[in-house]
Amino acid sequence: MSTAIPDLPLLATDDSMLSRKFGREVANYFSGSPLNRVSFLRADHAFLNAAFAHPSASFLLLDNYSPLAKDTTTLAYASKEDIVPLTGPEPFKPTEEEHIKSFNSAVTQPIVLFMGLDEKKTGFQYREYKGNPYFAVDVTPKGSIVEKAKSVIEAVKTKRGVSFIPGARLLTLNAPEAAIYAQARALLDWNARNPFCGGCGERTMSINAGTKRVCPPTDLAGVPEGAEPKKREDCPTRHGISNLSFPRTDPTVIMAIVSADGTKLLLGRGKRYPPGWYSTLAGFLEPGESIEEAVRRETWEESGVHVSRVVIHSSQPWPYPANLMIGAIGQAAPNGETINLGNDPELEDAKWYTFDEVREAMGASSVGFGEPVTEKRKLRIPPQTAIANRLMAAVLDGYLSATPKM
Amino acid sequence: MSTAIPDLPLLATDDSMLSRKFGREVANYFSGSPLNRVSFLRADHAFLNAAFAHPSASFLLLDNYSPLAKDTTTLAYASKEDIVPLTGPEPFKPTEEEHIKSFNSAVTQPIVLFMGLDEKKTGFQYREYKGNPYFAVDVTPKGSIVEKAKSVIEAVKTKRGVSFIPGARLLTLNAPEAAIYAQARALLDWNARNPFCGGCGERTMSINAGTKRVCPPTDLAGVPEGAEPKKREDCPTRHGISNLSFPRTDPTVIMAIVSADGTKLLLGRGKRYPPGWYSTLAGFLEPGESIEEAVRRETWEESGVHVSRVVIHSSQPWPYPANLMIGAIGQAAPNGETINLGNDPELEDAKWYTFDEVREAMGASSVGFGEPVTEKRKLRIPPQTAIANRLMAAVLDGYLSATPKM
Repeated sequence: MSTAIPDLPLLATDDSMLSRKFGREVANYFSGSPLNRVSFLRADHAFLNAAFAHPSASFLLLDNYSPLAKDTTTLAYASKEDIVPLTGPEPFKPTEEEHIKSFNSAVTQPIVLFMGLDEKKTGFQYREYKGNPYFAVDVTPKGSIVEKAKSVIEAVKTKRGVSFIPGARLLTLNAPEAAIYAQARALLDWNARNPFCGGCGERTMSINAGTKRVCPPTDLAGVPEGAEPKKREDCPTRHGISNLSFPRTDPTVIMAIVSADGTKLLLGRGKRYPPGWYSTLAGFLEPGESIEEAVRRETWEESGVHVSRVVIHSSQPWPYPANLMIGAIGQAAPNGETINLGNDPELEDAKWYTFDEVREAMGASSVGFGEPVTEKRKLRIPPQTAIANRLMAAVLDGYLSATPKM
Repeated sequence: MSTAIPDLPLLATDDSMLSRKFGREVANYFSGSPLNRVSFLRADHAFLNAAFAHPSASFLLLDNYSPLAKDTTTLAYASKEDIVPLTGPEPFKPTEEEHIKSFNSAVTQPIVLFMGLDEKKTGFQYREYKGNPYFAVDVTPKGSIVEKAKSVIEAVKTKRGVSFIPGARLLTLNAPEAAIYAQARALLDWNARNPFCGGCGERTMSINAGTKRVCPPTDLAGVPEGAEPKKREDCPTRHGISNLSFPRTDPTVIMAIVSADGTKLLLGRGKRYPPGWYSTLAGFLEPGESIEEAVRRETWEESGVHVSRVVIHSSQPWPYPANLMIGAIGQAAPNGETINLGNDPELEDAKWYTFDEVREAMGASSVGFGEPVTEKRKLRIPPQTAIANRLMAAVLDGYLSATPKM
């Protein structure tokens, strides 16, 4: 689940200098997408229009974040014909400028997200960029598109014999499709959470094929057909570049903290964890803080343990709803290992576990977040799909030893 | 500027296991704050009230993001008396619940941000937490507080003989105060950019001493004194935890890309760089993407170069307005070094420079973003305060060599 993904074309051979020193790069679950996002083509309506129309295009449908899937391991895709009743036949035909001019705040806009080109599959080509196009479409029934969305959902289920798999903590998908789902879920969620402008309070609209939201200067709501659109008040997001227009990702630190003597790991237990579960500590990074500082602050706040050095290990997209998990390994200060849960009472418990105890938990079958506990064990840890598990594994594998790993 | 900060108490001795393998942890400019944020006390009005009232409290004032400063290297602080005309004598006296009930969307709320305790300076104590309290206050004249803010600004300048230093790219402050400024700037900016709720379009209010914004369920605007506040429509951010309530930080990747043979560095030139300037490539991380993937995507999109392994080096808060710079070192794939600026035409130029050329630029005096160019040189690079410079230095220092440092 978390080894380097073998068919990622850009991963070099093992004898590169970096791998000599650092071992194989760790690609965690939800990363390793097979798609080239070609992000610079998202404002090119001719490209989007051609990609949307091409018979090789795949459409991942999400109903309230549940993806269309064959089963819990494999996604299913719709075709253009399936979604045209909702999106219209040529949603990318207008230029972006025309699209913004046509903004009508009373009409719900179905989000059609362009995700990228799968360069392993050839069929579609635009300029020098080749590969089958992937889109994601939000088919959640809401606003003025309730009925259309419902009939698209029913039709695709009947026609294809597939269903929408509840997406909450969906950690069973095959790795490349997990990355596709993560991208779709995170961006559709961001669009759904931000219908209004934080700068002026007016309704915003989706542009750049689902990857940007703007606060249009005019609105056609309530305007008779053919008449000029209503002008809206000035908005600060229209002056220069505003980060409010772009998707939000929340950096989160997650850390395996090793005792000063390098023999134990600090694990904590959240209040809603399943019985027996412990995991690495984690928390949101704050403004004006480095990753390394956030690791020290969160560890001390949650457990009372003082951390000295911190090294960043790897990262994991976590689309619930929009986190970037930044995995780090830190070492407790020699006199800073006393556990104190009294600062920020977020954890129910925190403990130092010996490497052997963690190794035993690692060897036993992992248990998912919602799965029932069927056997008694001293310690249960998250599955390999979680970066928490990979950080613990890195420590047990000798990440801290002075000998470079391959 | 970017070495480990010597008085940071939690940095361990150099013989820790991590430092044996990885060398000293790199603390970049804008990190290394001397303040303990004690973030769990931000909702405790008794703590905030006591800290605000304590004679040891320092107040950093920002006028339109320009901080009160003695000169371009040293901040200046106001006292409680200086800012009471704007904030009132006890802004934290009400509980958070009372504060939310008193919400009036017609009244501009001056943001009083609690930043943390400087544990090196004793005087104030609350429970077991000791240290002088630091606040930041947004004194930008705006909304219903224009006149009060203007008189606070004039009074403090006259009384203290200090001024507000324009904060755009302020890279001359001493390192600990740069971190304090970064925290203040990022959070005041976030509050100022988000007066409205992205979920429902209504006005929001600041709570948790400037570190959280909520969409209150009621509003006193236009309500006669003593009458019940107006109820507002339901808002999705009031159900469970919403990331829209918390500060936004945008993860950004910045990368020193080394040629496959380990002898050259890839540097690019933005369209608005000063003459002769080149720097490492950089770009925003996208939802559903790992740091390592973002490094590969951005490098290919901007320069055409294909990157194989990526290792994360260190991080830097960058408060313009709210970026987290995540510094990485990557290696080009053996057959992927051809430069192509035609994908995303963001760069004016990109080039492979030999280590010697970069070393020469590194040795010469650095030139700041706005500084005039006074001598002819082949290559100019950003100063040591920029993580770009530190990434290049790490490569030149043999970060990629197989021999562990220290």
